[in-house]
Amino acid sequence: MNRQVSLLPLLLASLCVGPASAQTTPQATLAERLGYPRGAKLLILHADDVGMSHSINRATLQALDTGAISSASIMIPCPWLPEVAAYARSHPNADLGLHLTLNSEWTMYRWGPVTSTDRVPSLLDRDGYFYSTTQEAIAHIDPREAEVELRAQIERARAFGIQPTHLDSHMGLLFQTRALFAVLLRVAHDYKLPVLLSNDLQVMGGDTTLFAGLVMPTDILIDHIVTIMPDVPPARWGQFYEEKIKQLQPGVTEMIIHLGHDEDELRGAMAGFEGWGAAWRGRDFGYFTSDAFRRLLRENNVQLVTWREIGKLR
Amino acid sequence: MNRQVSLLPLLLASLCVGPASAQTTPQATLAERLGYPRGAKLLILHADDVGMSHSINRATLQALDTGAISSASIMIPCPWLPEVAAYARSHPNADLGLHLTLNSEWTMYRWGPVTSTDRVPSLLDRDGYFYSTTQEAIAHIDPREAEVELRAQIERARAFGIQPTHLDSHMGLLFQTRALFAVLLRVAHDYKLPVLLSNDLQVMGGDTTLFAGLVMPTDILIDHIVTIMPDVPPARWGQFYEEKIKQLQPGVTEMIIHLGHDEDELRGAMAGFEGWGAAWRGRDFGYFTSDAFRRLLRENNVQLVTWREIGKLR
Repeated sequence: MNRQVSLLPLLLASLCVGPASAQTTPQATLAERLGYPRGAKLLILHADDVGMSHSINRATLQALDTGAISSASIMIPCPWLPEVAAYARSHPNADLGLHLTLNSEWTMYRWGPVTSTDRVPSLLDRDGYFYSTTQEAIAHIDPREAEVELRAQIERARAFGIQPTHLDSHMGLLFQTRALFAVLLRVAHDYKLPVLLSNDLQVMGGDTTLFAGLVMPTDILIDHIVTIMPDVPPARWGQFYEEKIKQLQPGVTEMIIHLGHDEDELRGAMAGFEGWGAAWRGRDFGYFTSDAFRRLLRENNVQLVTWREIGKLR
Repeated sequence: MNRQVSLLPLLLASLCVGPASAQTTPQATLAERLGYPRGAKLLILHADDVGMSHSINRATLQALDTGAISSASIMIPCPWLPEVAAYARSHPNADLGLHLTLNSEWTMYRWGPVTSTDRVPSLLDRDGYFYSTTQEAIAHIDPREAEVELRAQIERARAFGIQPTHLDSHMGLLFQTRALFAVLLRVAHDYKLPVLLSNDLQVMGGDTTLFAGLVMPTDILIDHIVTIMPDVPPARWGQFYEEKIKQLQPGVTEMIIHLGHDEDELRGAMAGFEGWGAAWRGRDFGYFTSDAFRRLLRENNVQLVTWREIGKLR
């Protein structure tokens, strides 16, 4: 373990460079490799959880459509998948990835695996759904069964006409143990898809010490990840995001947001939850579709980018 | 087939009597067996599709709670099952049956079997959900796999703390072929649960010629079934129901209704469908929770009854 950690800085330094090519110098940043100046502030404004509910679909697909956000990721096991799949088929350039899902976190509204359940018993709680919490999931999931299910989610996406631009992990589960992270990377490498990787992964509960020996030179790390957490009170919501945009560093940052409408469907699904609940998603939707936020991006010279652009570097 | 049909009147005559007991004469009607006068007009006011969506749950459970309706049935494979199961556990006297489900009829929001899918491939369309239409379901479903799934739905209900009072069939599928009807009755007999049976079964697309040799003397047939169909224009909705209540015959009638709120979740799920869509369910909710409808029942001496009462006769 210590040996792995001690190798990490060297490994990560090499990862930031990526494969040498005629166009790039060994020191080229990700921004430069994407064709932007080294000092450019590039933002993947990314909404999670598409497919989970109609309200989330409606809010997120509208924000994608109007260019308010640049990217989103889909939960394939959820029952509103057909709605987002129809959008993906009719908007082949939309930047839609897969929010690989092995948790079902609410109480009144739940889902389970795409795979035939007999083949992935370790993914199921006693009610036959995915586990509610990442702790339970980590305690019970057999990584081999996780791999079967993740591959099935990707295959199902493709069967629905979705060509995912990237992979990430619902509730950050796959960033939390070495065995699950190894599965995520193996699957991503096989399908030649970029994964949400960054030294900022701990922002969402991830553990970058897992990178050692698993992240390959061809993997691309973005520079920063930003996401709001439950410690920010609703009254300081706008202030939090404004500070993050004003303080944005050069390079590629993903800001992970959660869009929805604060209406009956989400209120019913998320009753009793404050973090990432209906009001939270309604606040995010209001903020990120506002003229004030567009102005903030302009005034701070922030440009929206996509995973599709990053995927082309592979 | 002809032979079965020719035996039917005799069979049905014997069925209307039920098992002889010290309290009943051979001519006792179902109303009398339930303890009401022979001329009583008894109504099971029954809402289908609970568990399908939050809007349907909210509308139906409110109507059950206030006594506006007397009975409802649950779709176990649907993702909002935990919400109605919580209600069932906290309201053990609520008259909740199972709306046995082998179809997933909408476009943007879908569901599939409770059983591990490898074990019931004939139930699945190419997207891995239940078939959309009853015609497709009939063309593809292996009745042995249907039986596995129906038993799994009942077991799942019980695992969730639901003690169903009766069984019926989503979209009337199980009333449409002899093989599926045989499965329904076999399962009902094994679990000792009453089934929605009546000579009026054709009202919902059923075929009573299937009864011959399958319906047992211990099965109970209710007298009538009434349900509104898409040929009634919305403007004549109230008039249709008012006439049905005024014309109600003595005996036990089930009126099958569909409650929901005409809001975004249902509009999204049922977009493009008129029959049984969001507006339809909103109209039903408005009508059956109105004071005018309560008055209509009183003025016509109609009493609400439940499947729980019928189940006690077995």
